Amino acid sequence: MDDLLPFKVDEVVRRALDEDLAGGDLTTEACIDPEARAVARAVARHEVVACGAFVASRVFAAVDPTLAFEVTTADGAKAPAKGVLWTVSGRARSILMGERVALNFCQRMTGIATTTRAYVDAVAPGAKTRITDTRKTTPGLRYLERYAVRCGGGKNHRDTLGSAVLIKDNHVASCGGVRAAIERARARAPHTSRVECEVDSLAGLDEAIAAGADVVLLDNMGDADVRTAVARASGKAILEASGGITFERIAALSAIGVDCISVGALTHSVRSADIGLDFV
Amino acid sequence: MDDLLPFKVDEVVRRALDEDLAGGDLTTEACIDPEARAVARAVARHEVVACGAFVASRVFAAVDPTLAFEVTTADGAKAPAKGVLWTVSGRARSILMGERVALNFCQRMTGIATTTRAYVDAVAPGAKTRITDTRKTTPGLRYLERYAVRCGGGKNHRDTLGSAVLIKDNHVASCGGVRAAIERARARAPHTSRVECEVDSLAGLDEAIAAGADVVLLDNMGDADVRTAVARASGKAILEASGGITFERIAALSAIGVDCISVGALTHSVRSADIGLDFV
Amino acid sequence: MDDLLPFKVDEVVRRALDEDLAGGDLTTEACIDPEARAVARAVARHEVVACGAFVASRVFAAVDPTLAFEVTTADGAKAPAKGVLWTVSGRARSILMGERVALNFCQRMTGIATTTRAYVDAVAPGAKTRITDTRKTTPGLRYLERYAVRCGGGKNHRDTLGSAVLIKDNHVASCGGVRAAIERARARAPHTSRVECEVDSLAGLDEAIAAGADVVLLDNMGDADVRTAVARASGKAILEASGGITFERIAALSAIGVDCISVGALTHSVRSADIGLDFV
Amino acid sequence: MDDLLPFKVDEVVRRALDEDLAGGDLTTEACIDPEARAVARAVARHEVVACGAFVASRVFAAVDPTLAFEVTTADGAKAPAKGVLWTVSGRARSILMGERVALNFCQRMTGIATTTRAYVDAVAPGAKTRITDTRKTTPGLRYLERYAVRCGGGKNHRDTLGSAVLIKDNHVASCGGVRAAIERARARAPHTSRVECEVDSLAGLDEAIAAGADVVLLDNMGDADVRTAVARASGKAILEASGGITFERIAALSAIGVDCISVGALTHSVRSADIGLDFV
Amino acid sequence: MDDLLPFKVDEVVRRALDEDLAGGDLTTEACIDPEARAVARAVARHEVVACGAFVASRVFAAVDPTLAFEVTTADGAKAPAKGVLWTVSGRARSILMGERVALNFCQRMTGIATTTRAYVDAVAPGAKTRITDTRKTTPGLRYLERYAVRCGGGKNHRDTLGSAVLIKDNHVASCGGVRAAIERARARAPHTSRVECEVDSLAGLDEAIAAGADVVLLDNMGDADVRTAVARASGKAILEASGGITFERIAALSAIGVDCISVGALTHSVRSADIGLDFV
Amino acid sequence: MDDLLPFKVDEVVRRALDEDLAGGDLTTEACIDPEARAVARAVARHEVVACGAFVASRVFAAVDPTLAFEVTTADGAKAPAKGVLWTVSGRARSILMGERVALNFCQRMTGIATTTRAYVDAVAPGAKTRITDTRKTTPGLRYLERYAVRCGGGKNHRDTLGSAVLIKDNHVASCGGVRAAIERARARAPHTSRVECEVDSLAGLDEAIAAGADVVLLDNMGDADVRTAVARASGKAILEASGGITFERIAALSAIGVDCISVGALTHSVRSADIGLDFV
Repeated sequence: MDDLLPFKVDEVVRRALDEDLAGGDLTTEACIDPEARAVARAVARHEVVACGAFVASRVFAAVDPTLAFEVTTADGAKAPAKGVLWTVSGRARSILMGERVALNFCQRMTGIATTTRAYVDAVAPGAKTRITDTRKTTPGLRYLERYAVRCGGGKNHRDTLGSAVLIKDNHVASCGGVRAAIERARARAPHTSRVECEVDSLAGLDEAIAAGADVVLLDNMGDADVRTAVARASGKAILEASGGITFERIAALSAIGVDCISVGALTHSVRSADIGLDFV
Repeated sequence: MDDLLPFKVDEVVRRALDEDLAGGDLTTEACIDPEARAVARAVARHEVVACGAFVASRVFAAVDPTLAFEVTTADGAKAPAKGVLWTVSGRARSILMGERVALNFCQRMTGIATTTRAYVDAVAPGAKTRITDTRKTTPGLRYLERYAVRCGGGKNHRDTLGSAVLIKDNHVASCGGVRAAIERARARAPHTSRVECEVDSLAGLDEAIAAGADVVLLDNMGDADVRTAVARASGKAILEASGGITFERIAALSAIGVDCISVGALTHSVRSADIGLDFV
Repeated sequence: MDDLLPFKVDEVVRRALDEDLAGGDLTTEACIDPEARAVARAVARHEVVACGAFVASRVFAAVDPTLAFEVTTADGAKAPAKGVLWTVSGRARSILMGERVALNFCQRMTGIATTTRAYVDAVAPGAKTRITDTRKTTPGLRYLERYAVRCGGGKNHRDTLGSAVLIKDNHVASCGGVRAAIERARARAPHTSRVECEVDSLAGLDEAIAAGADVVLLDNMGDADVRTAVARASGKAILEASGGITFERIAALSAIGVDCISVGALTHSVRSADIGLDFV
Repeated sequence: MDDLLPFKVDEVVRRALDEDLAGGDLTTEACIDPEARAVARAVARHEVVACGAFVASRVFAAVDPTLAFEVTTADGAKAPAKGVLWTVSGRARSILMGERVALNFCQRMTGIATTTRAYVDAVAPGAKTRITDTRKTTPGLRYLERYAVRCGGGKNHRDTLGSAVLIKDNHVASCGGVRAAIERARARAPHTSRVECEVDSLAGLDEAIAAGADVVLLDNMGDADVRTAVARASGKAILEASGGITFERIAALSAIGVDCISVGALTHSVRSADIGLDFV
Repeated sequence: MDDLLPFKVDEVVRRALDEDLAGGDLTTEACIDPEARAVARAVARHEVVACGAFVASRVFAAVDPTLAFEVTTADGAKAPAKGVLWTVSGRARSILMGERVALNFCQRMTGIATTTRAYVDAVAPGAKTRITDTRKTTPGLRYLERYAVRCGGGKNHRDTLGSAVLIKDNHVASCGGVRAAIERARARAPHTSRVECEVDSLAGLDEAIAAGADVVLLDNMGDADVRTAVARASGKAILEASGGITFERIAALSAIGVDCISVGALTHSVRSADIGLDFV
Repeated sequence: MDDLLPFKVDEVVRRALDEDLAGGDLTTEACIDPEARAVARAVARHEVVACGAFVASRVFAAVDPTLAFEVTTADGAKAPAKGVLWTVSGRARSILMGERVALNFCQRMTGIATTTRAYVDAVAPGAKTRITDTRKTTPGLRYLERYAVRCGGGKNHRDTLGSAVLIKDNHVASCGGVRAAIERARARAPHTSRVECEVDSLAGLDEAIAAGADVVLLDNMGDADVRTAVARASGKAILEASGGITFERIAALSAIGVDCISVGALTHSVRSADIGLDFV
């Protein structure tokens, strides 16, 4: 699996802890003996693709560096219902204080990974279609959510507005045409970036290809048009289907041969996984 | 409606912008003339309870303080499908650069407000039951999400571990009983806080009331037990139903007379509202 | 004792170090050999209730993670004049660089704990009156100062404006009366919060109780009125005496039976404890 | 008066607001109409040397940029009991939300300025002795507290360990003598810095002067020794009296002719000024 | 010209001001009357390509929002020796306090823009070769330095390790060959990124092209090899010359027809422009 | 050598890593096996005065705390061409991710140290002239660059506008003369600071000395005037030559006997050292 960088994770973890623990934990400080120790296991309540163990470990380390943390299900691996994801042990107070924040991260990340895997598994057999995320991520969590998508077998779209080009209708309108927009974008973008252009018709596709787009985004097109687009773009441009993508369309769209399907719902409307922290 | 404090909002906005715009916007800088101006309207694609206009306004102000921003649908008010939520106008480049981040906030906040309203509307006629959130909020966004719940007509649960007491099974176990746990918590907590205790049986309820709990959380109880609990606790303790709450149960639980139903899904698994930014 | 969370402490420590050491330490770098080692003991110059050892340990750890730190007098325990509070050992340069900041924290926190203990000890024998802090804390240090109050045997008042309700005269005036104010506050506040209302007369007390206030703050009342208030409120509301509280009044007010006395001077006007760092 | 830089003030203000308002203000949001307006005056309850108006203005601006703020008593000027310091007007909610934090700053800063003025006024007529602060400032507030000392007519000591040299006993011991310590410090320090050396005896004074110290700190010396020191150091070194300085000694020490008296209590043990915010 | 986003600029400006002004400005506060006003012009001491005016304006705004700022020479435009770049006017104290930091930014940014322009102007007439920066930017200033390169007519390379692929020898070695490295990188990278591979021989070039590299970096190759490479890669891959590039080689390399020349010295070893702030 | 404080270094390191690695490292995550290990040595490509090893070690620790780091050439020591400066070993991915940022710091710091050493070595034999830096440092890096100057054998000038006085022509003009400016500055500055005054003529020098300046800055004076100034100031004031200082003038100016020569180019226009990271 890819790396999660500690300096990136710790920053978002510290903010999350500050939201929940800025004034300590009244209940735990009152009721739990300072010397009490405990062992607690994160357990999936249903089948999941695990994600977020490292983030949870950093939550607990920020609360109390003496806690021990062990991963049972690696990020990206499946755990069955009742499967143990990770175990934290040490001072009971510290575990209770970090519990909610650690779970909030893991449930979301695991939810994304699990949902992404379902989309990826829905790709037609033999098809090479990528399932990708979009920039519709939760504010403040893009780094973690893009990682979760990868854990689910998905791919990432461009990470920021500064790393790649995606020309939309407003850009085209302002430039007075697709060709001018692509040329201006090509001139501005690093030579390491491809130039992608959004179109909403087959005529638009033809124009974009003729103007030299490397990637063409087919916005809200039906299967028939996508099929024609795939035939026309073959060997000339990479095709991304986007807009109004439902889970049900993945099989058909991938069977048609589109290169990439981007799905905003992977991050903006995902159901959190149900994960409990069971004290042994 | 309640206030959103600018110093709180600006901090989370700045982080979100940094995620998306740390390297500028290749496409917009290339394709949009620096002097071009535009007017764009946030439009709901389906009926929503609006939320997040102020956050959007701060996003655009952070990108470009010269942009004008006008709210059409106040937070907490309903907008029909195709209803305009707010309008931003000024430099086209700046609007395009802030668009995605502004929408990411508004879609999530509006999604929460809209979902909460549905739960609130499901409360039985005449019942005084509160629908509340939980601490299962998105890391980094608790302040905004709690506000969104209020915009939807819901109420907030305690905001942090340091502001109120909620005794759970681990706390009880460590103290050797409900009475000891409640007494220790009462001694530690500010005199401005109530003491809440979680129970999973009617016997537990009796014990908690006898020990002086102000609020009792009924964890994962069926309607029959909740009905008995309401009868027994009447005038003695506030009752909160929690755990395994589905939308379908709201009507029945509230009709039974429970004081409060807390719903984690309001924040941890909400579907983002579909809002588009239409350039006029 | 309660926990101090490292991620909270480290943030305030880093800022304090930055104030003093942003440009290094000219004198120590010039005069102390890089390899020189030392042992230094924090010693109380008068009897104190110790507080702040963990903060001091984090100061030294931030300057130099290789320093060793040992606590002799636990937070909340008394140390006699000349009593050792804690010992730091290792690189002499590092100890000298962290000395002032570590002492600045400990002297203030120990001053608060010691003063609070004096107030707590002044409570009449047998009385159950709480001595509490207020929101008149030093900007930036609320978390540490509330902890110090607890180390001195005091209790905390609400920690933020968002965690509990305290209705003051302006709130009452704006609502058109005590009853309306209490009802509106009750509706807005989490069900885990009590509602407190400030009054400056016995008539006000009666009104607040009748309106359902859980807690009534008696503002600047003389002993006679407080005595009457205690009688009237018995079993109906918690009473907090506040405003113009001097040390001399603690015994009488607590003997009268008020539940809580809040003292702003615990944090806004405390004399720092005299603590020296003696190199062995 | 000197300037307070907005970017410095805003940072400490934001932190203070976050401590108090991270979750909003339950009471004010519930009880105060969003459209209600108010005018409130900061009024001294006793004679003070005013300080902190700009900080208060930035507190209110951070809560609500539409509030108006007017200064009546400039920083450093005296206000009599019942004197108005400043006035804030606008949205009532916003004023109430910022009130406590604004006062916490002003009461502390005004307390320092007022106390410092008393020390400065205690200097013997005709004497040129400076009253200075020390590095015993409140963690996080050094910039504001040093400003408050100046508002009271005091002078600042070095602001950080990196801006000037002050050789203490540990430094001397490590160097094997005063001369070596002074030479090493001189070599390391910028040519814009004087070199100060602490001594606790007249013999030490002689040694320090002989070794070329620009400033000598007389630690905990009685009046007689200070008198001798002044005579011996005349024209050769600046003398600073420090350690065990009480208010009562200021007149005598300054009459003797010491150049500077540094007083830790100006910042570490100051009594906050009593300032109320009166709604008109 | 492209936009500089205020929220990005203000963050780096605040840090720079904090370095210089954390303790105020002793000299200016002492010597300049608080009411004194001034007008000051940034004047180039030699011909430059201007850059950084917006950053300077934010420096002065952070010190004092009442200062007026006017740009005479737009970023990217040439100014002759003695040419005015921008003018700041208002409170004299504020201008003096911000002067050094504003100039430190402008001198560096203008230095980079001016140097880049020289490289760009050295490209052979008719050649389409890009001059680009590298990731050898000054820590903390990448955003500003990449902007300065564009102001000088240069282009940017990838902005971060996360936005595009550049396979180096260690990557190839670890994958067991160029083909495997390119395939793995292609699979991981967003479909919006090109894949670049570094080679140090013509054999390497052939291998990279055969394996499907979009861009090939020719590391430290002589003109003859570059000429051969250009011929072989024509229509198959973009070629970037890098490593050991001196100003003297630009004309020849571009005449040969390489697509891009990346020059680390544009940012890591640039001579600051000489710009003075002349008070009128 | 002096200390670099970890809490200062880590802050600037984290920012630099965030610039380069906010989205991870596409290439390394794709191509390098997570378990692969490596040893890499920082090697000077030409003779240098080493500087920055501690900063590099913190870069690698922030990326991956399990990496081992060993220093071969201490800061301030010379390394020949091909000399090893430091070695990092452990997870290959982590080393590759931190490589560029670590080198960016070391190359700049080593460049400054090496250049400073050349200036220091150019001082005439027997002369006691200091080579110092100025406030013309890179925004955000002042702490590290001043350290690098010391590693090269140079001295630091004042570190901030708040730590010492330097009166320039605008200050003099505003005060109506040198004497008034010096008196006002003396009154404001801590008694630990010297007062320096800039002059551009011998008449100015006389006036500054007569007014009691401790240090006089000779701005842009020729050798003849400097020689006269040295004679006149002998025993009365410290002399600093500044403005238009080239490397070629160091020998002559120091031979004349000026106390200090300040050189902005040490930090604003330094050539980075060429250091490579060679994988063993």
